[in-house]
Amino acid sequence: MIKTDILIIGAGPTGLFAVFEAGLLQLKCHLIDALPQPGGQCAEIYPKKPIYDIPGFPEILAGELVDNLMEQIKPFQPGFTLGERAETIEKLEDGSFVVTTNKGTKHNAPIVAIAGGLGSFEPRKPILDNLSKFEDNGVAYMIKEPEIYRNKKVLIAGGGDSALDWSIFLANIASEVTLVHRRNEFRGALDSVEKVQELKNQGKINLITPAEVVGLHGDDKLEKVTVKKTDTSQEMDVEVDNFIPLFGLSPKLGPIAEWGLEIEKNAIKVDNSLDYQTNIPGIYAIGDVNTYPGKLKLILCGFHEATLMCQSAYQRIFPNKKYVMKYTTVGGVLGFDGSKKEAPKAVVKTIK
Amino acid sequence: MIKTDILIIGAGPTGLFAVFEAGLLQLKCHLIDALPQPGGQCAEIYPKKPIYDIPGFPEILAGELVDNLMEQIKPFQPGFTLGERAETIEKLEDGSFVVTTNKGTKHNAPIVAIAGGLGSFEPRKPILDNLSKFEDNGVAYMIKEPEIYRNKKVLIAGGGDSALDWSIFLANIASEVTLVHRRNEFRGALDSVEKVQELKNQGKINLITPAEVVGLHGDDKLEKVTVKKTDTSQEMDVEVDNFIPLFGLSPKLGPIAEWGLEIEKNAIKVDNSLDYQTNIPGIYAIGDVNTYPGKLKLILCGFHEATLMCQSAYQRIFPNKKYVMKYTTVGGVLGFDGSKKEAPKAVVKTIK
Ligand SMILES: Cc1cc2nc3c(=O)[nH]c(=O)nc-3n(C[C@H](O)[C@H](O)[C@H](O)COP(=O)(O)OP(=O)(O)OC[C@H]3O[C@@H](n4cnc5c(N)ncnc54)[C@H](O)[C@@H]3O)c2cc1C
Ligand SMILES: Cc1cc2nc3c(=O)[nH]c(=O)nc-3n(C[C@H](O)[C@H](O)[C@H](O)COP(=O)(O)OP(=O)(O)OC[C@H]3O[C@@H](n4cnc5c(N)ncnc54)[C@H](O)[C@@H]3O)c2cc1C
Repeated sequence: MIKTDILIIGAGPTGLFAVFEAGLLQLKCHLIDALPQPGGQCAEIYPKKPIYDIPGFPEILAGELVDNLMEQIKPFQPGFTLGERAETIEKLEDGSFVVTTNKGTKHNAPIVAIAGGLGSFEPRKPILDNLSKFEDNGVAYMIKEPEIYRNKKVLIAGGGDSALDWSIFLANIASEVTLVHRRNEFRGALDSVEKVQELKNQGKINLITPAEVVGLHGDDKLEKVTVKKTDTSQEMDVEVDNFIPLFGLSPKLGPIAEWGLEIEKNAIKVDNSLDYQTNIPGIYAIGDVNTYPGKLKLILCGFHEATLMCQSAYQRIFPNKKYVMKYTTVGGVLGFDGSKKEAPKAVVKTIK
Repeated sequence: MIKTDILIIGAGPTGLFAVFEAGLLQLKCHLIDALPQPGGQCAEIYPKKPIYDIPGFPEILAGELVDNLMEQIKPFQPGFTLGERAETIEKLEDGSFVVTTNKGTKHNAPIVAIAGGLGSFEPRKPILDNLSKFEDNGVAYMIKEPEIYRNKKVLIAGGGDSALDWSIFLANIASEVTLVHRRNEFRGALDSVEKVQELKNQGKINLITPAEVVGLHGDDKLEKVTVKKTDTSQEMDVEVDNFIPLFGLSPKLGPIAEWGLEIEKNAIKVDNSLDYQTNIPGIYAIGDVNTYPGKLKLILCGFHEATLMCQSAYQRIFPNKKYVMKYTTVGGVLGFDGSKKEAPKAVVKTIK
C-alpha cells in the first residue's frame, strides 16, 4: 500500500502543480496516471505546440511547460504510479481513502485530489478477434519504455504524430520498423513527415500503405501479423515481435464517474466559492475535470484551483494548526530532499 | 477623455495579465497606476528577488516576471496613465464609468477592473515646513524620468535599496550626487552597498551620515537644503537642484475606499463564486485588492481572477454575443497591432 498525504489522480499540469503547493505546506503527494508519462494533454496531445496564455510566458511549448513543472516540483519528491488507471475508491474507518488501480496497486491518503482532466486517456483499439490475447504479450497501445524494443521487430500502425514520431524514434533502436497506415497521406508536423520519408528512403523504415493489420498470430506471444493492402486487397504476413497500433488516445471520465460524485456535463461539480471540494468531503476536483459556474478549461485556472485546494486539504489534515502563509520570496522553498532555495538576504552595512 | 473597453486601476501583475485575457476577447484596456512604472509590488518592492511559486518557473526574478508580462501583452497595445492616482468615479447615464486621477486625467469605460493590490503606492514624506511648496519644483518622491536629472545637483535621502540604487544610477547622470542617511548603516543588496562605497571612494557620491535634511530653501524652486549631522548637531547648507527623499512607498487603499464598494479587511469584497464582480455591477476587483472566503494574496490567483473577470466583462459589453473560447494554441494570438502568433499547422502529406 502506497501511503501519502494527498493522492492526486491525474498528472497533467494541474496535478503536477498541486505537488508544489502541497510541498510548500510540507504535505507529500503521490500521482496516478493512465499515461506512461506525466503532463496530461500537454504531453500526450500537443507537446510540440506553443501555448500563448500561460502568464509570464509570451510563448511556451506544451512539452516545455511540463518539463518546467517537473523541475519546479522536484524538491517535493512526488511519487508516481504511471500507466495505471485509478479504478475504485473506498473510505476507511479513519476517514482516509484507498484508491486501487486497474493493475491492483493500492494507495492510501486522507485527501484525494482528482485532477483527471477530460478523463483517463484510453487508447482507440483496432478491431481484431484475438487482440486481447496479445495485449502485453506483443501488443501495446502506448510506449512506456522504448528500451524494451531494442533489437526487436516492431510494426506500428497509424497515420498521425504519434505513429510518425515513434517510427522515427524506434528506427534507431529496433532491428526492424514497419509502418502501416490505411492511407498514403500522413497528418503531422512537417518535419516529422519529412523525416519518415527520409528514413523510408534509407531503408530504415518499411512503409506499407494504404494498408491495415487484419490478423494476429502466435502461440504464447505475438509472432506474425497479416497486413492487407486496402487498394489491392492483397494480404501479406509480416514477422514481428511487437505490434503497436497508435490510433490516438481518447479521454474517458470512466470509473471515476461511479464514485458517487456529483457529475454535470461529464465533469465533477465542486464548490468554487471555497476550496474546489466535491460533494464527498476530503475529495477535491481541480483543473479540467471539475465544473462550476463560469468554469474555463484553462491551464492557468487549474493552477489557482490546485493552490486553494491545498490550503483546504492542509486544514482538513491539521484541523488545529493555524497555517500562516509565507511568500516563497520570503520563506524560500524547503525541499523534502533537504534542498533549500531562498532569496539572497539584504545586508546591513556601514558605508564609510 | 481617454476611452477604452476595460479601465484597469493598478498595473501590477494582475492588471497587466488582464490586458492579455481581454485582448484575446478583442477588448482594449487602459491602465492607471500611481507608480511611474508598471509591475506593482513586484517592480516597486522586490524587482531583484526571486519568486518560486509562479507556475512553470522554478525561479524567476519579480522584475523579470513583469518584463515577461509586458512582452506578453504587447500585441494588445494597452494605454498607460502612470504616476497618477485614480481618485474619483462617476457613473454616466449610458452605464459607463468616468474615473478621474489626482492630476485631472479622465478615463471612460463600460467596465472598471480594480487591480489595486494593497493600494496606491504613496511615498513616506519627511516632515519639513515648506515641503509642499517645492513638490514638483525640485522635490520628488519617485524617479519617473532619470534624464531630467542630467547635469543637475541631486541630493537623495534614505538608507534602503531605492536610495542606494538611484544614487548609483544617478552618479553617471547628475553633475553631483549627495546621499544623506540618518544612520551610518545602509540596508540593501550586498552589491548595491558595495557599489555605493566604491563610488564614494571615487568621489562620485558625497556621503553625509548620520544626518538628515532639516530645511529647504529657494525662491520659485529649490536651491539649497540644510543638512544636520545627527551625531554632532552641526548644520551645513548644500546647494542642490533636486531633493529626492526615498523613505519607501506604502500602499494605501485611499480614495477607492470611498467609491461605495463593500470593504472588508481593507480589501474589496467580490463574488468569487462567479466573476469577481463587486457590489457595483460593472466594477470588478481582482488580485490582492479583493477578498473572499479562502482568498490568498498570490500572483497566480490574480491571473485566474483576471481571466474569469474578462469573460464576464465581455458578456456585459456584448450581452447578445455568444463567445466561444478558443485555446491560444488553436486560435493563436491576434494583436491589435496586426501581429499574429500561431502554432505551426500540421500538414497532410503523402509518404511515397
Ligand atoms: C490541442 C489543445 C490545445 C490546447 N491549448 C491550450 C491553451 O492554449 N491554453 C490553455 O490554457 N489550455 C489549452 N489546452 C487545454 C489544456 O491542455 C488543459 O486545460 C490542461 O491540460 C488541463 O490540465 P489538467 O491537469 O486539469 O488535465 P489533463 O491535462 O487532461 O490531465 C489529466 C490526466 O489525468 C489522467 N487521468 C484521468 N482519469 C484518470 C484515472 N481514472 N486514472 C489515472 N489517470 C487518470 C489522464 O490520463 C491525464 O493524463 C489545450 C488542449 C488541447 C487538446
Ligand atoms: C517582499 C514580497 C514578496 C512577495 N513574494 C511573493 C511570492 O513569492 N509569490 C507570490 O505569489 N506573491 C508574492 N508577493 C505578493 C505579490 O507581489 C502580490 O500578490 C502581487 O503583486 C499582487 O499583484 P496585484 O497586481 O494584484 O497588485 P500590486 O502588485 O499591489 O499592484 C497594484 C498596483 O495598483 C496601484 N494602485 C492602487 N490603487 C491605485 C489608485 N487608486 N490609483 C492608481 N494606482 C493604484 C498601485 O500603485 C500598484 O502599483 C510578495 C510581495 C512582497 C511585498
